[in-house]
Amino acid sequence: MTNDAVTLAGALADRSAWRANRCPIGRALEVVGTRSAMLIMREAYYGTTRFDDFATRVGISEAVAAARLRDLTDAGLLERRPYRDSGQRTRHEYRLTDKGTALAPVVLGLFEWGAKYVSPTGRPPVDLSHADCGAAVQVVVKCERDHDVALNEVIVSPPPRRH
Amino acid sequence: MTNDAVTLAGALADRSAWRANRCPIGRALEVVGTRSAMLIMREAYYGTTRFDDFATRVGISEAVAAARLRDLTDAGLLERRPYRDSGQRTRHEYRLTDKGTALAPVVLGLFEWGAKYVSPTGRPPVDLSHADCGAAVQVVVKCERDHDVALNEVIVSPPPRRH
Repeated sequence: MTNDAVTLAGALADRSAWRANRCPIGRALEVVGTRSAMLIMREAYYGTTRFDDFATRVGISEAVAAARLRDLTDAGLLERRPYRDSGQRTRHEYRLTDKGTALAPVVLGLFEWGAKYVSPTGRPPVDLSHADCGAAVQVVVKCERDHDVALNEVIVSPPPRRH
Repeated sequence: MTNDAVTLAGALADRSAWRANRCPIGRALEVVGTRSAMLIMREAYYGTTRFDDFATRVGISEAVAAARLRDLTDAGLLERRPYRDSGQRTRHEYRLTDKGTALAPVVLGLFEWGAKYVSPTGRPPVDLSHADCGAAVQVVVKCERDHDVALNEVIVSPPPRRH
């Protein structure tokens, strides 16, 4: 066993006896498991709302942008709303929903990991800070009692039966 | 502007004047931007080390498992080491590196988001708890002064110049 793994408890302890068939990670990746989907969410977090801006800033074709924006809208991460600039025809913009905003820890986690482990400089190209106090922003794994939790301090167990 | 977006500051404030060309999120996704790569990392966190177990538990073909394990090993998230069961020929197992373990907040973030927003029950199929105190484990966005940070409280600014 590697020392970095979680501890599997109870009925999960024998890994050969079960498979992660209903895995929420797998379900999440059915929705946001492509590079372009994640980068469109990044753009939405940056405040991008318009079709042309998504395509240009992510660096994908209009066809791919259209398909991905439709997927993300159908899945409820973005909401399509009409708008009209003066003298122009009605167009649509894409706004974040609560479901879309709730994915931010994943995208911020990719930002941190990519900056530290994949970027040639080992440093992020932009700073993320907290508006209220100016301190650096980070993604952390904590328990509800506010302890930092390393991966090998996580216990994975079957949920209590619900009656 | 949507209220849920970050605030772009300084030279980044005019979004039309820059693009995220050196984006760490994009770089991260070049390494772990496929569903099978993320699910292999999930399995490594569960303690899976052997080729057959990765393929079976992720539910992918041996060819895909081999390609993905090679990618993740080449990228430094897993390390390939020889082992030998008694009476068998030498085989290889895949162990987590620090770089691989450091991706855990992303995978745990997908778990949380998928359980809440994509799973039919809205509940995780397994419980994650802290070995030391038993409290539930969660992925959170915090600042270094330990404040919770919502997405619309993040300021994205150019890093200070380094001399």
